[in-house]
Amino acid sequence: MRSVIDILDLSVQELDDMIATALDIIDHPAKYAHACEGKKLATLFFEPSTRTRLSFTAAMYELGGYVLGFSEAASSSASKGESVADTAKIVSCYADIIAMRHPREGAALVAARNASIPVINGGDGGHCHPTQTLADLLTIRRELGRLDHLTIGLCGDLKYGRTVHSLINAMCRYKGTKFVLISPEELRLPEYMEKDVLKAKGVPYTSTADLDGAIPDLDILYMTRIQRERFDDPDQYERLKDSYVLTSEKLKAAKERMAVLHPLPRVNEISVAVDDDPRAAYFRQALNGKYMRMALILKLLDEAKKPAPPAKAEEYTDRFRCRNPKCITCVEQELSQQFRLTGEGKYRCVYCETAAEE
Amino acid sequence: MRSVIDILDLSVQELDDMIATALDIIDHPAKYAHACEGKKLATLFFEPSTRTRLSFTAAMYELGGYVLGFSEAASSSASKGESVADTAKIVSCYADIIAMRHPREGAALVAARNASIPVINGGDGGHCHPTQTLADLLTIRRELGRLDHLTIGLCGDLKYGRTVHSLINAMCRYKGTKFVLISPEELRLPEYMEKDVLKAKGVPYTSTADLDGAIPDLDILYMTRIQRERFDDPDQYERLKDSYVLTSEKLKAAKERMAVLHPLPRVNEISVAVDDDPRAAYFRQALNGKYMRMALILKLLDEAKKPAPPAKAEEYTDRFRCRNPKCITCVEQELSQQFRLTGEGKYRCVYCETAAEE
Amino acid sequence: MRSVIDILDLSVQELDDMIATALDIIDHPAKYAHACEGKKLATLFFEPSTRTRLSFTAAMYELGGYVLGFSEAASSSASKGESVADTAKIVSCYADIIAMRHPREGAALVAARNASIPVINGGDGGHCHPTQTLADLLTIRRELGRLDHLTIGLCGDLKYGRTVHSLINAMCRYKGTKFVLISPEELRLPEYMEKDVLKAKGVPYTSTADLDGAIPDLDILYMTRIQRERFDDPDQYERLKDSYVLTSEKLKAAKERMAVLHPLPRVNEISVAVDDDPRAAYFRQALNGKYMRMALILKLLDEAKKPAPPAKAEEYTDRFRCRNPKCITCVEQELSQQFRLTGEGKYRCVYCETAAEE
Repeated sequence: MRSVIDILDLSVQELDDMIATALDIIDHPAKYAHACEGKKLATLFFEPSTRTRLSFTAAMYELGGYVLGFSEAASSSASKGESVADTAKIVSCYADIIAMRHPREGAALVAARNASIPVINGGDGGHCHPTQTLADLLTIRRELGRLDHLTIGLCGDLKYGRTVHSLINAMCRYKGTKFVLISPEELRLPEYMEKDVLKAKGVPYTSTADLDGAIPDLDILYMTRIQRERFDDPDQYERLKDSYVLTSEKLKAAKERMAVLHPLPRVNEISVAVDDDPRAAYFRQALNGKYMRMALILKLLDEAKKPAPPAKAEEYTDRFRCRNPKCITCVEQELSQQFRLTGEGKYRCVYCETAAEE
Repeated sequence: MRSVIDILDLSVQELDDMIATALDIIDHPAKYAHACEGKKLATLFFEPSTRTRLSFTAAMYELGGYVLGFSEAASSSASKGESVADTAKIVSCYADIIAMRHPREGAALVAARNASIPVINGGDGGHCHPTQTLADLLTIRRELGRLDHLTIGLCGDLKYGRTVHSLINAMCRYKGTKFVLISPEELRLPEYMEKDVLKAKGVPYTSTADLDGAIPDLDILYMTRIQRERFDDPDQYERLKDSYVLTSEKLKAAKERMAVLHPLPRVNEISVAVDDDPRAAYFRQALNGKYMRMALILKLLDEAKKPAPPAKAEEYTDRFRCRNPKCITCVEQELSQQFRLTGEGKYRCVYCETAAEE
Repeated sequence: MRSVIDILDLSVQELDDMIATALDIIDHPAKYAHACEGKKLATLFFEPSTRTRLSFTAAMYELGGYVLGFSEAASSSASKGESVADTAKIVSCYADIIAMRHPREGAALVAARNASIPVINGGDGGHCHPTQTLADLLTIRRELGRLDHLTIGLCGDLKYGRTVHSLINAMCRYKGTKFVLISPEELRLPEYMEKDVLKAKGVPYTSTADLDGAIPDLDILYMTRIQRERFDDPDQYERLKDSYVLTSEKLKAAKERMAVLHPLPRVNEISVAVDDDPRAAYFRQALNGKYMRMALILKLLDEAKKPAPPAKAEEYTDRFRCRNPKCITCVEQELSQQFRLTGEGKYRCVYCETAAEE
């Protein structure tokens, strides 16, 4: 059963096909209004997220399907100690496809391995959030007309921002991509992203703490929220949160056709006055997310009808113990440790991708 | 985009038309069963309310539409600090019409000003709750056969009861309306309602603390709940809560065709024994609320198809600061103060209608 | 209006008919895909339960109907002090049938007596949970091919496990049933179940604390969760919770065609390794629950169209006060005490079935 946990589960060809489907949906919505008639999407949100949940729900409705689920763990059997695996097995009796958000890294993979229906990762802790990246890609495509040869500024919290990491992974695969990493020292891109992704793939990038200086060169400015919940020290949060606020004044130096993206919700990192600027693409980005989710639901339900291809034989070892306290392996009942040898020559937990300490 | 925030946003003619639509729905439900096919209602409940939310949901289903949303703030992005304006913009990507409840006064207006789809106020704190008044009006019409020349007793909490204020505003516009205000001294109708509405419009009314004495004259007895959450002093609540309990005994003095209304939920202000009295109209009132919500959804979705009329030029000043601690202006990001000069010659906050202190 | 509060509200003939309907649904789902078009199911969950709520929701969707409701008391008017009776009356305005879970014993009966639409009890505290038993019966029928002449092992918490009591009540009515009661001393079947049900009906049974010794004779092994929330003393819970864990090793002694059932969610009372054993029927049981809920919804909506049969005249007395602190009579507004003289010569509360103390 094909599931999507990470944006890299989808090939560039598949992304192109999904973008084509989304553009066709935008042009001919009536053609798709009954495409999923009688099908049921389960939205399993162990952690609240209005935007993502409502976007999936609207997507399924616009395909003529049903939606059921829960919007926080307190309303679910998780509060009675049920494992993610069991929930996935049970919900497979009630639905045709699952969209799931969970605070634990790797939870979506556990669900996918146990469900008998496709699972879409709607966010697993700080790990992956592939449908946000799908929204980003369609937005870049629609705003700039292409996905290659773009200079992309990533601004704000580059350390914890999973949407940033996903977007880097996705855009690295297009030709001519350049990144400008704009963040305070404390929130720089993690070293493994620089070393194992950007440098390993030979993608040019620069780092700076100066938003104003970086703006003129950008085709895309991807703003992110500096989240209170990421800081142990509230003073540090207070000191940093206003450092990278985008204002109309700052935008004056930008290219005329630059697009400002933001995964939303914003708090105050983009001034409300910027909303009226034609370059402000973040609300259109939310709309694009709905269309890409429609394309993804269509694709996975279609693949579910076909016999599954033989699973790739992968080799795992259980000789490490995942030391990431947010990994699903810390809490899931009878879930054994699995580490995979990755391209960079390190063993990583298959669930949360944290490197093993040897 | 036409929205409904306050019952006074609807003209008497429009109310009459909606009542006619509701009566037609009651007689010919099948005619409307697919009227909103493919349309999506977003129920954004930042504060729980089963009755109002389920009534809107049932209304949309009986029109053949879809419903999505949340039932409390904890399941929404508001818990991550998102503004009402941003939520309204985003949900405009996912739905065709919004029904919203929010604990802040003026929140629905902020949503309406930012959404690109119609917004129905399902209650903004203690401020307005127009669809409750729509339910009241259809109930009066169906129980008494008319909306004019009625003597209306309002009983209980007339100070904080927003449904009472809305009903006064609505019924003042019909000929021959008389009010009997029945409440303890502590919960009398606010002075501005007496002075700026009843006296200003020349509507006859009397005030009394004696429910028994008032009953014989009434065509309508509108009971309200004395809410625990309105009192700072729990002793005062305990002393007052039983003062205005309607019993079968008290009803003996009433006219044979009087109708008892209540916005519900009741706690104990109407004895359960009264439910079997044919004059007890409060459960029929809940049913009528569903039909009026159907009529309102139909009306607003229909108007949304047409080009918007040019907005009335209104003059605002920002030289005051709203001193109502429950006003949306206290918390909403970058929302500037706006005060409007009203008929009575006072400046009032456009969001919560609190008078400015000069 | 016909409602289902207790499994014994359904005759053996009715159960057989519903099983036949469920089997027909499994074979011909398309035949039923529009059976409830335009009908609305209200899922009123005053206490969270993903499984039961999603199962009812999926059931209604597969019949082509709508679903509305709430998933916990905090999102409902109950948080404003509304009675169960009033909620039932109001929701009757918004839906065609109710599925309800409530922490109070007897709450579903109060709802059924006040609603003008059918009510299905989805669990009322520790009292009844008839649709779980419907799932159990279809599972036994499908796994073993019959419902009579079976030896049924009930393992774990037989004291508080309402699903166990319901299953005993249901299976006692089939010929040749034998029970093996497997539990620690502290969690034995209550005396009244042994005396008033098993002994009174002459159903053979044995009691043991030894799961291994009991397994070889069983056709059905019904495992239950030992719930933390049932224990006042956490140490007692810790000491007992692992006593009756089913493992692959233990299963080696079982018959080849034995079926393992579990109402789920499990915590660790069945090892995950057992899931791959063909005798593990508990996930199929969850699927069967959906089909039986479909059959029940169909049956009750069908009966609701016909004139109600005259209610049986029953005699009640109010000369006792229910001493069960979890009974709905302790909290529901103006609900009078009602006790009925039962077959065993005792007076029992009609709501929670607790015997009166004379």
